[in-house]
Amino acid sequence: MNRKDGTDLKAFFEPESVLVAGSLREVPGTAFWVIRNLRHFGYAGRVHAVNPAPEKYGKVLGSRVYARVPDIPGPVDLAAVITPPSTVPALVEACAEKGVPAVIVLSEGFAEAGSEGAALQHRLREIARRSGTRVMGPNTFGVVNTANGLATIPPFTDQERMEQGGVAFCSQTGSIGPHQNPVSDWAYPISKMCDLGNKCDVSEADVLYYLAEDAHTRVAALHLEDVGDPTRFLEAARRFTARKPLVILKTGRTSPGARAARSHTGAMAGDDRILDAALRQAGAVRVNTWHELWEVPKTLVYQPLPPGNRLAVITFTGGQGVIAADAAAGAGLEMAAFTPSTLRGLARVSPRLGGNPVDIGPVMSDSRSQSSANPFSALEKTASEVLADSNVDCVTVTLYSGDQIVPLFPVIVDMMDGLARGVSKPLNVWIYGTSTRAMQALARRLQERGLPAYFDLETAVRALGHAAWYARVRNRLRGTVS
Amino acid sequence: MNRKDGTDLKAFFEPESVLVAGSLREVPGTAFWVIRNLRHFGYAGRVHAVNPAPEKYGKVLGSRVYARVPDIPGPVDLAAVITPPSTVPALVEACAEKGVPAVIVLSEGFAEAGSEGAALQHRLREIARRSGTRVMGPNTFGVVNTANGLATIPPFTDQERMEQGGVAFCSQTGSIGPHQNPVSDWAYPISKMCDLGNKCDVSEADVLYYLAEDAHTRVAALHLEDVGDPTRFLEAARRFTARKPLVILKTGRTSPGARAARSHTGAMAGDDRILDAALRQAGAVRVNTWHELWEVPKTLVYQPLPPGNRLAVITFTGGQGVIAADAAAGAGLEMAAFTPSTLRGLARVSPRLGGNPVDIGPVMSDSRSQSSANPFSALEKTASEVLADSNVDCVTVTLYSGDQIVPLFPVIVDMMDGLARGVSKPLNVWIYGTSTRAMQALARRLQERGLPAYFDLETAVRALGHAAWYARVRNRLRGTVS
Repeated sequence: MNRKDGTDLKAFFEPESVLVAGSLREVPGTAFWVIRNLRHFGYAGRVHAVNPAPEKYGKVLGSRVYARVPDIPGPVDLAAVITPPSTVPALVEACAEKGVPAVIVLSEGFAEAGSEGAALQHRLREIARRSGTRVMGPNTFGVVNTANGLATIPPFTDQERMEQGGVAFCSQTGSIGPHQNPVSDWAYPISKMCDLGNKCDVSEADVLYYLAEDAHTRVAALHLEDVGDPTRFLEAARRFTARKPLVILKTGRTSPGARAARSHTGAMAGDDRILDAALRQAGAVRVNTWHELWEVPKTLVYQPLPPGNRLAVITFTGGQGVIAADAAAGAGLEMAAFTPSTLRGLARVSPRLGGNPVDIGPVMSDSRSQSSANPFSALEKTASEVLADSNVDCVTVTLYSGDQIVPLFPVIVDMMDGLARGVSKPLNVWIYGTSTRAMQALARRLQERGLPAYFDLETAVRALGHAAWYARVRNRLRGTVS
Repeated sequence: MNRKDGTDLKAFFEPESVLVAGSLREVPGTAFWVIRNLRHFGYAGRVHAVNPAPEKYGKVLGSRVYARVPDIPGPVDLAAVITPPSTVPALVEACAEKGVPAVIVLSEGFAEAGSEGAALQHRLREIARRSGTRVMGPNTFGVVNTANGLATIPPFTDQERMEQGGVAFCSQTGSIGPHQNPVSDWAYPISKMCDLGNKCDVSEADVLYYLAEDAHTRVAALHLEDVGDPTRFLEAARRFTARKPLVILKTGRTSPGARAARSHTGAMAGDDRILDAALRQAGAVRVNTWHELWEVPKTLVYQPLPPGNRLAVITFTGGQGVIAADAAAGAGLEMAAFTPSTLRGLARVSPRLGGNPVDIGPVMSDSRSQSSANPFSALEKTASEVLADSNVDCVTVTLYSGDQIVPLFPVIVDMMDGLARGVSKPLNVWIYGTSTRAMQALARRLQERGLPAYFDLETAVRALGHAAWYARVRNRLRGTVS
């Protein structure tokens, strides 16, 4: 148990067989609905149901129903339990006796609900400690694995599919799940998700040890309300960040927030400044909003790390350039000073182009009024010059999207893809425009090609700032000269 | 000129006749396109064109073409000039001689383009000072007035309509305009817009004096890169904020940002900390991102000001409540302590409800599984109790939106409308969900009914924090006891 190679969590994410215990009424929030979501997202392993009245149901969505855990023939890797709290300890005990290595307690009504629930939760912890069976939760939606379609979430979701990709999410709130976020709309590249809930046993440290070894995960995004064992957590974080970037949103930072956290998962927050320093030393990127927890990993997962902290920005108006420069200063980036060769190259594109940020708006207008064959040729040449500059470590490029641009998407996406492929430095995109539908469609198309797209310029720049900071820290963690 | 009652800017926004001088080629970025946009957005006043070759065009989109400004019969209230920079001073002079009170110089290529342009810009300033004709720009898209359909913007826009409403935008970048933002998608409530560009004459102070008297404007949102005459600006800001809220995004805050601003509009930024203190004393709400410049005014324009700074939050998960409590602390709000009467009322809704933030998720799940006639009755009762609490000054309510919720929009919107109507304290909404289309559709429906909707919880809470701060400051500015 609590192994540092993460193998003890393998059964949570990669089970060959699952049992789901609870009500089989065909409504959300039940064991029935967990099975429905396992099917919905395409899990192909064996699924068994456990319910006191098997004769009433026969088979449920293809799963045989058993009265008791020991009745199930053959091994079970993962159990998902969603029954009234008082019945949960006996069920978990039965799973442990059967040798089920991983149990998720989906039910609510434990430490977050008062002293009676806290006592029940304590019993779950005891069973886990004694048996070696690991317990995730209670008060959780459990896990998602896009590689095998595993999704143990009890609520309804109309989410059609999840994009397989490199970002793992681990949280202390169900709000992270695919039933609460438009991950399909975004083509968000997910490897794994888990909601640790009240953390009676499985902790954020365990998950980090597991994810550090997980080949599908290239970035982890972690939402925390408290840290159970700070020493072990920071050790796990350091092991993780020596390999891949880790983005952390720690809530309950303020005393009202900490009070709210206590009443919600029973979490006790520590001193935020100390945690902040410790996270930085452990090489973790700290973000401060839910929005950033989703947005920052995109640049980290899709793009290479920047060799330094010198940013170039290409915008369509001067005012946007000023906003980008302010954001860069706030994100620890410097505005790159172009080499004479780049300045000559830009002057060939247009005498109106000069320093960084590059305001290409007037030049784009010119080329449009000349009705050039490729309306983006000026942008392409400019971005190509800027990306090739040895004084430039990372680049944010602006794109406009409106309904009239939709037919040009293939041209735009190919152009951006070509620009990104030509260099080993990160590039991201800020999209603005007059139609949210067209903006989102372009973002999706770009992200399908590995180009991170943002709807606010400040976050695009900040994501590159975090990437530059992490690149520097990782070199230090790896003991190389930065 | 420079009157403190703002009457000197009336002709920019409320002209009965407009002349547009420049190329009549049927492409964006020309005088033709300015006339096209005036028609597109429904401006019904007289529109004349000025072009050296009137015989070549005859009428353009219903507008008669004149060779020279003095040829136009009858008075002209507003001129929009988009000709090569070297030709602009003579045109502005001709407008002044004809007695045109307001000229917008849309052309680029002035102070932002080098010393030659700066000299031309200086001449425009001289003409304005000498003649009393006011000049906006150069390097601007000019103005928008949703009350009369006036929109002098030269670029292409597919924006279909603009929602009439109470927020005025004034900026130093064209990025604020309806050709660059999905204002229709958002049903964003706009009164006026103007882009001051290089500010050769008309300044932010002039605009604030005008907007302070404008009955259509109930909130102003101001983007600034520099402040021309700080004394006069702060005086105008104070006059404005004594009546209505003013939200300011000052960019070029950092030294790289200030450098970028200099190369863009020739603006010189001052010491940011001094400006910050001065803005606070003048009662202006300062925001730090472009996103907030759009989002914060919504709560200010749609909702009453809060009587105090005690926030209640209703969320669907405990984790969201913690995020809200952190955001509240950062925004100068306190989490309200409910009265015993409210706590009893909440206990009647469900024994699972207690303190603030209120996590209604588990109760909503219960009522859903009981397949109640109104799936939102628990939310409605809870919000009603919380809004009525005398310890609560402002409320953020969470709503979920997904494709399966769309048929319930009328029920939801009526419920929220009813809740907001019952009280004289502000209410805003945070929407999350699995479908961006459904989330945006719900936001639009709510905003059409005067309910500000946000897609991130932190900004919803921060907007209420700004409202509470402004309410306190306004009482001080008005000399009443707060």
